[in-house]
Amino acid sequence: MSPQRCRDIAHVSAVELRTQVPAETVDFFVRLMGLSEVARDGSRTYLRTWDDYERFTVCVVGAADSGIGRTWLRAAGPEALDRRVRAIEDAGLGLGWADGEEGIGPTYRFTDTDGHEFGIYWESDWYEAPEGQRPALKNQAAPFPGRGASVRRLDHVNYLAADVPAVTAFLPGVLGAELTEQIVMDDGVPSAVWYHVGDKSYDLVYTSDWTGSTGRLHHVAFAADQREDILRAADVMLEAGIHIETGPHKHAIQQTFFLYVYEPGGNRIELCNAGARLVLAPDWRPISWSRAERARGQAWGLKTIDSFHTHGTPPVDAAADAPGTAR
Amino acid sequence: MSPQRCRDIAHVSAVELRTQVPAETVDFFVRLMGLSEVARDGSRTYLRTWDDYERFTVCVVGAADSGIGRTWLRAAGPEALDRRVRAIEDAGLGLGWADGEEGIGPTYRFTDTDGHEFGIYWESDWYEAPEGQRPALKNQAAPFPGRGASVRRLDHVNYLAADVPAVTAFLPGVLGAELTEQIVMDDGVPSAVWYHVGDKSYDLVYTSDWTGSTGRLHHVAFAADQREDILRAADVMLEAGIHIETGPHKHAIQQTFFLYVYEPGGNRIELCNAGARLVLAPDWRPISWSRAERARGQAWGLKTIDSFHTHGTPPVDAAADAPGTAR
Amino acid sequence: MSPQRCRDIAHVSAVELRTQVPAETVDFFVRLMGLSEVARDGSRTYLRTWDDYERFTVCVVGAADSGIGRTWLRAAGPEALDRRVRAIEDAGLGLGWADGEEGIGPTYRFTDTDGHEFGIYWESDWYEAPEGQRPALKNQAAPFPGRGASVRRLDHVNYLAADVPAVTAFLPGVLGAELTEQIVMDDGVPSAVWYHVGDKSYDLVYTSDWTGSTGRLHHVAFAADQREDILRAADVMLEAGIHIETGPHKHAIQQTFFLYVYEPGGNRIELCNAGARLVLAPDWRPISWSRAERARGQAWGLKTIDSFHTHGTPPVDAAADAPGTAR
Amino acid sequence: MSPQRCRDIAHVSAVELRTQVPAETVDFFVRLMGLSEVARDGSRTYLRTWDDYERFTVCVVGAADSGIGRTWLRAAGPEALDRRVRAIEDAGLGLGWADGEEGIGPTYRFTDTDGHEFGIYWESDWYEAPEGQRPALKNQAAPFPGRGASVRRLDHVNYLAADVPAVTAFLPGVLGAELTEQIVMDDGVPSAVWYHVGDKSYDLVYTSDWTGSTGRLHHVAFAADQREDILRAADVMLEAGIHIETGPHKHAIQQTFFLYVYEPGGNRIELCNAGARLVLAPDWRPISWSRAERARGQAWGLKTIDSFHTHGTPPVDAAADAPGTAR
Repeated sequence: MSPQRCRDIAHVSAVELRTQVPAETVDFFVRLMGLSEVARDGSRTYLRTWDDYERFTVCVVGAADSGIGRTWLRAAGPEALDRRVRAIEDAGLGLGWADGEEGIGPTYRFTDTDGHEFGIYWESDWYEAPEGQRPALKNQAAPFPGRGASVRRLDHVNYLAADVPAVTAFLPGVLGAELTEQIVMDDGVPSAVWYHVGDKSYDLVYTSDWTGSTGRLHHVAFAADQREDILRAADVMLEAGIHIETGPHKHAIQQTFFLYVYEPGGNRIELCNAGARLVLAPDWRPISWSRAERARGQAWGLKTIDSFHTHGTPPVDAAADAPGTAR
Repeated sequence: MSPQRCRDIAHVSAVELRTQVPAETVDFFVRLMGLSEVARDGSRTYLRTWDDYERFTVCVVGAADSGIGRTWLRAAGPEALDRRVRAIEDAGLGLGWADGEEGIGPTYRFTDTDGHEFGIYWESDWYEAPEGQRPALKNQAAPFPGRGASVRRLDHVNYLAADVPAVTAFLPGVLGAELTEQIVMDDGVPSAVWYHVGDKSYDLVYTSDWTGSTGRLHHVAFAADQREDILRAADVMLEAGIHIETGPHKHAIQQTFFLYVYEPGGNRIELCNAGARLVLAPDWRPISWSRAERARGQAWGLKTIDSFHTHGTPPVDAAADAPGTAR
Repeated sequence: MSPQRCRDIAHVSAVELRTQVPAETVDFFVRLMGLSEVARDGSRTYLRTWDDYERFTVCVVGAADSGIGRTWLRAAGPEALDRRVRAIEDAGLGLGWADGEEGIGPTYRFTDTDGHEFGIYWESDWYEAPEGQRPALKNQAAPFPGRGASVRRLDHVNYLAADVPAVTAFLPGVLGAELTEQIVMDDGVPSAVWYHVGDKSYDLVYTSDWTGSTGRLHHVAFAADQREDILRAADVMLEAGIHIETGPHKHAIQQTFFLYVYEPGGNRIELCNAGARLVLAPDWRPISWSRAERARGQAWGLKTIDSFHTHGTPPVDAAADAPGTAR
Repeated sequence: MSPQRCRDIAHVSAVELRTQVPAETVDFFVRLMGLSEVARDGSRTYLRTWDDYERFTVCVVGAADSGIGRTWLRAAGPEALDRRVRAIEDAGLGLGWADGEEGIGPTYRFTDTDGHEFGIYWESDWYEAPEGQRPALKNQAAPFPGRGASVRRLDHVNYLAADVPAVTAFLPGVLGAELTEQIVMDDGVPSAVWYHVGDKSYDLVYTSDWTGSTGRLHHVAFAADQREDILRAADVMLEAGIHIETGPHKHAIQQTFFLYVYEPGGNRIELCNAGARLVLAPDWRPISWSRAERARGQAWGLKTIDSFHTHGTPPVDAAADAPGTAR
C-alpha cells in the first residue's frame, strides 16, 4: 500500500449486466430500484441512478446468460489513464482501445486476472437533465425519483474468482487499489478481499468461486442514503415478488447495512448503506477475518445463508451439487 | 483544480476548541455528543469520537475566550508532508515545527491567510482501546457508545474569514484542496467557499466575517451515521437545555442534513449527515449560488436564521450592532 | 371526560376535499402521497391509502372553491351509532339519513357547531384488493406502493372554527371525544383544542379562525410510518414543485413530527409521525399551553410560520389584510 | 368480539420480572434500555420508561429463578374495575384484593387459565418528575434519556401456555380482549393468539408451551419510537455482550419490526416498532396463519430461529431434549 494517495482510479462508474429477460431486468431497475432509462441501442438499455453525474450507471444487455459484462472505471485524469494503461499492458491484460459509448470517451479494454472485462477511460460528457426534468437543487444531477428504492449511486462490485490470490497482486499493482479487509483461510490464503480506490471503505471485492469457474459475478451493490431506505426497499421487493435472499442486516465485515435480492435475470443485487463510515487513514491496516470469525455470522448474529456462498451468475453445472460448505 | 488526485492531505483529523467553561464543554462532548475522554494535560482535555482511528478528535482548552485553536491535518504520507511544508513556506505562512501531542508525531505549524492556526503531520500512533473497552467488531476503533448523539467522526470545519478571496488562492495552491460549491455575490466576489481534500463533498469551509475580524470560527461539524441520529440528538439537546440555533433541516448547498447547537462555551457545533453523497468526479464543476438563490432558504424552504449570519466565536464588539443583513 | 371508555366513534375514516383543480389534486394524492384511485363518480374521485381496511380515505371533489366537505366517522357498532345519532339530534345538529357511498352503509349527516359537515355510519363493506393487486402479507389491505410519500392512513383533521369554546361542548358531549391538549389564551378562552376518540393522542382538532369565518379547514393529516418517510417526502414534494409551508420539524404540542404542504387545490396537507406515542391513560389530564408558551415555537425551536396562522381553505377576503398576529 | 368498544382494560401497565442476577438485570434495563430507577424495596427494584405516566413499568425481583411474576392491568375506571373483578370471580380465577405498590391503589389479584398472575387496579398516583429532572416539554412524563435503546413504553407481553385454547375463552370473556391474529394448526387448534385491549394491534399474546409447562414467559416487549432506534439498539446490545437472539427484522404476523435479546437473567426481551399501524376497525376480522404459512419465515424471508420456539423462562428440564420442531 502506498501512502502517496495518487489515486489514478477516480471511481467505479458503471456496470454491464447480462440477462435472459432484459425487459424484466430493466423494469426491476426502473420501477423498483428507482433508476431511469437514458438510452437504448439494440439489446442494450442504459440506465442511470439519479445522482450519477455521468450518463449511465447500468447497461442491461439481453444475452444468452446472466452475469456481469464490462465494468467501467473512470480515471482521475489523462495522465492517470496513461499510467494505468501502461500498467495493464505491462501485466499482459490489455485488450486494446475501443470507442466509448453513451457519453464516455475512448476506452481501454482489459481483463482482471480472472477474466472479468473492464474498461477504463477519462473523457466523459456529463449528464444534462432535459428541460422539464431538472432537479430542484442544482447541485444534483437529476430529480430524486421517490420511486421504489430510489438508490443514489453505484457503490461496489463483488466478483467471484477462481484464484483470489492472483487478484491480490493485480488490484494494487495494476489498478492502484488498496486492501481494507479480507477473509483469510487457516492456511493463510485469502478467500475474499475488499479493495478501495477512494475514501469509501471498498469499491472492488473478490470472493473465491467454489466452483472453480472464472469471470462470474457475486453481486453489484447500489448505495441508498439511509438504512431506512433499505428497510423500505425490503417492502418494495416483497410486494413485487422479488426474491429476497438475506437481510436487511449489518455485515460484520465492513459493517455495511445490506439487503440482497435477485433481479429477474438472476443476478444478485445489493442495496447498501455505510452510514458515515469512510476509511480515511492513509496507513490503514487491513483487517483480517479468520474462517472461525466469519462463521459467527453477521454483525448482529444473523447466520450467513447458504446460497450466499453458492449462488453466482451465470450459474454453472457444478452448482447442482453445491457443497454449501465451500467457505 | 488538478485531476491528478495526488491528495496530499488525507483528512482533517482534529480541532482545538477554546472555552471559558471547559468542564461544561467537556461534559457537552462526552455526555451529549458521545465522545470519550482519552487524556488530560493541564487545561487541555483530549476527547475522541468512537470511530476515530487516531487518539483524539477534539482538544478542549480552557481559555480566556471561545473560538477555534489549531486544526490538525494528517498528510497522506511523508513525501506528501514534505511537499505541503514546502508549499506553506513558499507562501510565507509557516510557523515552524513543533513536537506533536497525544499520539501525533512532529507537526508543522502554520496559518491560513486569515490567521487560523493549523498543524500538519504524518506520524500517528493509532488509538488502541484498553482491555475491557474493546469494540465488538475489530474493524472499528472503539465501542459504539449509545450515549447522546453518538457522533461517529469529525466532518468539517467552517471558518470565518475577513478576506474570503484570499483563501481561494491558499486552499488549492497551498493545501491542494478543491472547490466544490460557493456563494458568489453579485459583484462576482465569493462570500463562502466549500473545499474538499478527499471524496466527501467538503472538509474546509470559509465564510465571510461581516465584522471584518480575522481568525474566528463559524462552526465545527461532526458526522452522525443517519438522519434519525440527528433528529434524536435534537431531543437530547432539548432535554439538556442546550441552545438549538436551527434545524434539523437540509441545506440547499451541499444538501447536508443538519442541526446547529451552541456548546456551553458558545462555539457553534453542527451535527451533520450527508447520506451516501460523495463528490467522486475528478473534473467536478463547482456549483455557484447567487445571493438571490441563497435568499430562498434551505432545501425545504426554511429561512436561514439571522444568528447564523452573525454569530461567530470568539464574539466581537461589532456584534452588538450586527446588521443581520451582512449576507 | 368519562373513564368508561365506551368509545362510540371507532375512528375518523374519510374526508371529502374540495378543489378547483381536481385532476391536479388527484395526481398529488396518487403520485406524491401514494394513494390509489378506487372509483370515480362524476366530479368525485375516491382514493385510498394502502392500509385502509375500508374502500376510500379521501374523496376529491371538483368544486367552485377549496376546503373540506364531509368528514366520515365510523361508529363502533350499531348501538353506538344509535346513541350518537340521538345525541346529535338532541343537540339540534342533525341533517338526516342519507345513502352511503363507496362501500359505506346508511349515513347520518350532521354538522358540528361551526357548520362543518359530518357523516356517521356503521355498515362498511371492506376493501377487497382485486386479483393481481393483492398485498404480500394478508394482514394488510393493499400492497405497500413504494411511491412518493406512501402514507399509511388518515390521521386527523384540523378544522378552523369561529367559536372554539362552542366546539368544546360539542366534542365530548355529542361525539364522546376527550380533550388531550389545548392552547388557552390569557383570558382563559381556548383558541385551539385537540380531541381523541381512541388511543392516538388526537383525531379531531379545532383552531380559532381569525377571520371569523365558519366551516373552514386548517389541514388534513396523513400518517407516515417513520420520520424518515417524512424527510424523504420533503424531497418528493420539493422535486414536484409542491409548496412546502413548514417542516419537517417536531411540534411541541402533541410532539408530532410534521411536514405541511399545500396540495394543488390549496388545501393544507400534513404528513405526520407520532412515533410510538399513545395516550393510554383513562384519566389523562389535558395539557394546557399558554399564548406565551406557544410563542416559543416548535419543539426544537422553529418559529411557527405566519401563514400557519392565516392560511385556511376556502380563502376568505379577510385574508387580504391578515394581521398575522391573530394568535 | 363485541363492537361495543366498552374497553374495561385501559392498557397493560407494568410487569414483574424475576431474575437470579437482579443487579445485572437492573443494569440492563437502566444502561442499555434507557429506563430509570424510581424506587427500591428489598429485593424489588422499580424501573420506569420515560413516557410512562405512572410510576413504574418494570419491577425487577431477585428470585430463585427467571420468568414473569405479576402483570399489572389498569382498568378504564372504577366501574370497569368492578365489572372485571366480577367476571374474574365468576370464572373462578380470583386471588383476592391486595394493597397496591409504587403509586398503584387497591389491586385485585388473579391468574389466567395457565397460572400467570395478574393484578388489576384503577387508582394510580401519576409520576411526578422531581425538581431538576423535569422534561423540556410538559406533555411528557420524564426527560428523553438518550441512553441506550431509550424505549418509550411497555408494549406487550407474550406468555407461554400449556393450553392455548383455554386462553381463547378467558381473554375475551374475562378481560374483554379482542383477537386480532392467530396461528392455527392443521387440526384447527390455535397455537398462538394475539389479543388487543385498545387500538394497538396486540397487547397480550399467548403461545403454546411445547414443554407442557404452565406459567412461563416467552417475552416482554418495549416500544421504540422508530425502526432506526431498534437498529441502533442492536449495536448497543452487541457492544454490551448481550445475547441477540434474532433480528432486527419484520414479523409477518402483526408486521412488527423487532429485535429479541436475552437480558442477563435469561428473560427474552423484545424491542419493537409498529410504525403507524393500528387496528381501528371495530369489526376487525382476525387473521389466521397456517403452519405452512408460518414456516415461510418472517416478512422479508428470515427463517424463525429454533430457540424462538424452545426458549422460555424459567427454563424447564424438558428443554434439554427440545425437539426444535414443536411448532
